[in-house]
Amino acid sequence: MFTGLSAFPLTPFTADAIDERAFTGLIERLAGSGADSITALGSTGCYSYLTTEERARVARLTVRHAGRTPVFIGVGALRTSQVLANVRSAEVAGAQGVLLAPMTYQPLTADDVFELFRTVTEQTSLPVIVYDNPRTTHFTFTTELHGRIAALPRIASIKIPGVPSDPEQARGRVQEIRGVIPEHVTVGVSGDALAAAGLNAGCDAWYSVIGGTLPEPALRITRAAQEGRRADAVAESEHLAPLWALFSEFGGSLRVVAAIAEHLDLAPHRSLPLPIQGLNDEQRRRVAEVIRELGLDG
Amino acid sequence: MFTGLSAFPLTPFTADAIDERAFTGLIERLAGSGADSITALGSTGCYSYLTTEERARVARLTVRHAGRTPVFIGVGALRTSQVLANVRSAEVAGAQGVLLAPMTYQPLTADDVFELFRTVTEQTSLPVIVYDNPRTTHFTFTTELHGRIAALPRIASIKIPGVPSDPEQARGRVQEIRGVIPEHVTVGVSGDALAAAGLNAGCDAWYSVIGGTLPEPALRITRAAQEGRRADAVAESEHLAPLWALFSEFGGSLRVVAAIAEHLDLAPHRSLPLPIQGLNDEQRRRVAEVIRELGLDG
Repeated sequence: MFTGLSAFPLTPFTADAIDERAFTGLIERLAGSGADSITALGSTGCYSYLTTEERARVARLTVRHAGRTPVFIGVGALRTSQVLANVRSAEVAGAQGVLLAPMTYQPLTADDVFELFRTVTEQTSLPVIVYDNPRTTHFTFTTELHGRIAALPRIASIKIPGVPSDPEQARGRVQEIRGVIPEHVTVGVSGDALAAAGLNAGCDAWYSVIGGTLPEPALRITRAAQEGRRADAVAESEHLAPLWALFSEFGGSLRVVAAIAEHLDLAPHRSLPLPIQGLNDEQRRRVAEVIRELGLDG
Repeated sequence: MFTGLSAFPLTPFTADAIDERAFTGLIERLAGSGADSITALGSTGCYSYLTTEERARVARLTVRHAGRTPVFIGVGALRTSQVLANVRSAEVAGAQGVLLAPMTYQPLTADDVFELFRTVTEQTSLPVIVYDNPRTTHFTFTTELHGRIAALPRIASIKIPGVPSDPEQARGRVQEIRGVIPEHVTVGVSGDALAAAGLNAGCDAWYSVIGGTLPEPALRITRAAQEGRRADAVAESEHLAPLWALFSEFGGSLRVVAAIAEHLDLAPHRSLPLPIQGLNDEQRRRVAEVIRELGLDG
């Protein structure tokens, strides 16, 4: 279940409230796309900005509108008790897994993070995806810590922040992680620009930002890699290079993907929670131009 | 009002709930200490880990138990609407100022942060302290952004993360900030080990971690610097060097100060919110030893 393309939808806001119509529209679009799973309330889903109640609501809406597509729910929060509340609401909603990032305000130690995962895996029967995202959590997993955590019961997958772009080094990195984790734990790449490299290097899954809004091109990359057509996967990814360039230039994928969803009328204007203002008009024009050039606006 | 020693109390927890008896004990201790103000729900007060309701409760308790000492309340949160809710509860409680850090999960732009401060200053009549703490927020203020924000109405003070340890360079840094902000906006140093350097370099205030738990030695440093006894301020700070060394060695001031409060029976055992586990037994023994050597356990 923790393989292939996991699509990370946005959680669109209108006037500081979740836009449920836009959100369920995104989920239904993904359910019909052939994505292997939907992960709601990832970083792209702005999980950390939502209240516990809003998160329970999003979990319910996702499961209700995802059809037969497995649903994973992001449960990270600054305080362990809040994480556990999110885990319970994911269980109640009928999710098939949870995604847990060690959010920080005060820097955490490796033991703090291990104990967090130990506590959560003790208190849920759901499979847990370890979310390693140093750019937003500012916590850096060592390979050794990945090994300690992956040995806990119910750990199902590790979402790694990327791989080196060099194919040899990428394989080495994936093998290094596999060397310290049980065989049943899958490795999923994130960082969309590195997805083809990660899948070609042996990652089992792609935890995908772009897949949540533009599932078709993400599926082309994923299926090519899964079928051993490595060059095709790379070519499909290189075709999207103008998009990856915007991710770099505009400070990450979130603002760009929100602008894409807004441009395609999948989300209302200014759909990100404040204080994140999203892209300015000139940046939005550039995003729209790239989407048109890539034929993704049809 | 935004000058001298502002003491930052811990918010002690017992079984994942605020320990109100311990907290009000800390506040009453500070009210009787001669500290110039109390800032509850700073980073030391674990503001980011508390719910909106818990924060309203802490604001009320602080004002109720602070006597005549002015109270400032930390209002930072990831989402602007949550910040505004915290501002309102600080107003209702009767606080005399609010402290606002630009918390991040997704990295924020300078414009995001400016708009956050503009929105808050538009919607409150309370003075606002700008909280510049890159270690926990991972947002770095430029001097230019400090100038833009300080020009907003109701900005009263800037809490800077420290100054260079060299006195000449420290003066230069404080002058650089003063050069871009209105005269009525005070500059307060934080980073306890650099407080004497900051005050001697012309900072008006010390936003103090240690002052929230051990106000006496913090007041000795502050009064010496305010009275122009620069060498005395430095000597008082150097006397506490073993404490500053523990801050460095044990990953910051919070865990050490919590261990001190627990050792002095000002807070219950394991008073930090999980997943922050606090110091281990061996580290706690070292903290207790330093406190005894410095004569701070009496």
